[in-house]
Amino acid sequence: MSESIIKSIIKNAGSILRYGYYESQRFKEKEKGHLLSEYDEIIDNYLIKEIKNKFPLCSFYTEEKKEMINKSDTKWIIDPIDGSAYFIFGEPYFSISAAKEENGVITEAHVYNPISDEYFYSDNEINISFLNENEITVSDVNNLEETLAAFGFSANINAINKYYNEWKNIIDRCKKGIAWICPALSICNVARGRLELFIDFGASYEGQSAASLILKNAGGKMLNYDRSDYSHKIKGGIFYNGKIEI
Amino acid sequence: MSESIIKSIIKNAGSILRYGYYESQRFKEKEKGHLLSEYDEIIDNYLIKEIKNKFPLCSFYTEEKKEMINKSDTKWIIDPIDGSAYFIFGEPYFSISAAKEENGVITEAHVYNPISDEYFYSDNEINISFLNENEITVSDVNNLEETLAAFGFSANINAINKYYNEWKNIIDRCKKGIAWICPALSICNVARGRLELFIDFGASYEGQSAASLILKNAGGKMLNYDRSDYSHKIKGGIFYNGKIEI
Repeated sequence: MSESIIKSIIKNAGSILRYGYYESQRFKEKEKGHLLSEYDEIIDNYLIKEIKNKFPLCSFYTEEKKEMINKSDTKWIIDPIDGSAYFIFGEPYFSISAAKEENGVITEAHVYNPISDEYFYSDNEINISFLNENEITVSDVNNLEETLAAFGFSANINAINKYYNEWKNIIDRCKKGIAWICPALSICNVARGRLELFIDFGASYEGQSAASLILKNAGGKMLNYDRSDYSHKIKGGIFYNGKIEI
Repeated sequence: MSESIIKSIIKNAGSILRYGYYESQRFKEKEKGHLLSEYDEIIDNYLIKEIKNKFPLCSFYTEEKKEMINKSDTKWIIDPIDGSAYFIFGEPYFSISAAKEENGVITEAHVYNPISDEYFYSDNEINISFLNENEITVSDVNNLEETLAAFGFSANINAINKYYNEWKNIIDRCKKGIAWICPALSICNVARGRLELFIDFGASYEGQSAASLILKNAGGKMLNYDRSDYSHKIKGGIFYNGKIEI
């Protein structure tokens, strides 16, 4: 098990990221509307270097570098800052996300918010999900009227209209719906029962892989965005407590 | 000066709120789409009791209790949890906000996020704003294309359409726009230069009073939502760095 080694590496990366958050700093732009900070690259480089040092044969897939194939069937999928825009805007709702994929299956999952010190963890041997030392489970809410929901939009009106056209019934009926552009932590918040539903057509491979195992082992369910059987390799998803009707 | 006494009371209230955040807890509903937690009332009661204890003649205006008139012209305007929905959803972007109003003017301002331990402070004698020990100022960005902006909407489609109809030019042209329903911290993030603009037609008296003095003393500017001269007593507002064209 790589659990404790990886946790220690991610906690150290979290200290670097925490320093970056409290420093004033500006962004660079990847593409229109997609912000990155210098810390995306710093954390990416740090995690690859440290994990390689302990597990030299591993492959990697990261937001910054994409695929890096090596000799082992074990691949680490890394999102150095899930929620880069929030990091830049001064909102402490972002995380480091790392998933171990073996023969195409996620077997170990880490999602860490270094500001609130919330560490979500699961693996496919324990089949339990943890927030720090505590086991977490999804909520028992089973009707839309009591549902708290989040959707993966910013202030892009085309994206908002797409969500509204496709999920009008939920958006209008749920108790409260909010906008969230930080998929890993948002899926983990479904896993811990704070909300019932998170829908994001843009959730990336690196943004959803770790959190999807955490949600599964907390009793939740996932579908691809088009409602087909879930794969963490397909962009987008519907992440919910498994009890409300989707 | 009440500064250090109030800071100590707010930091203690922050410890209670921090405990509440890490505990799992659900919401009660004030009205459709407006969530409150049991901690809104706990923090409200704590602050009133402790401030009254030190300043027995003060009046109060709080989100929970509204107006409480006493013998002094000094009034404390309190938002026990600015960003209640985020507190409930598991997002550490909420604050305790307290403003001292004397003869209708804000003279002292406190905004505190107890999870990130970010304490924003200003008063009208120093005319400087602080985040913890550091002086803060607005950003130097002066064009819309480089502007980071936030708007006070959740997933309520009517509110979103109102923002888009009224601010289409900014939403479409700015570098990045996001949704934020936590006015006090969001105005403070303009004050510290993380973003250039926050627009919220729903910002309440208790949500904006403290943060408006912090923004003013950090070099920023404010208008009422209808672009008339700013008053913290009027619902809604446009909060910006004073350099971009609004």
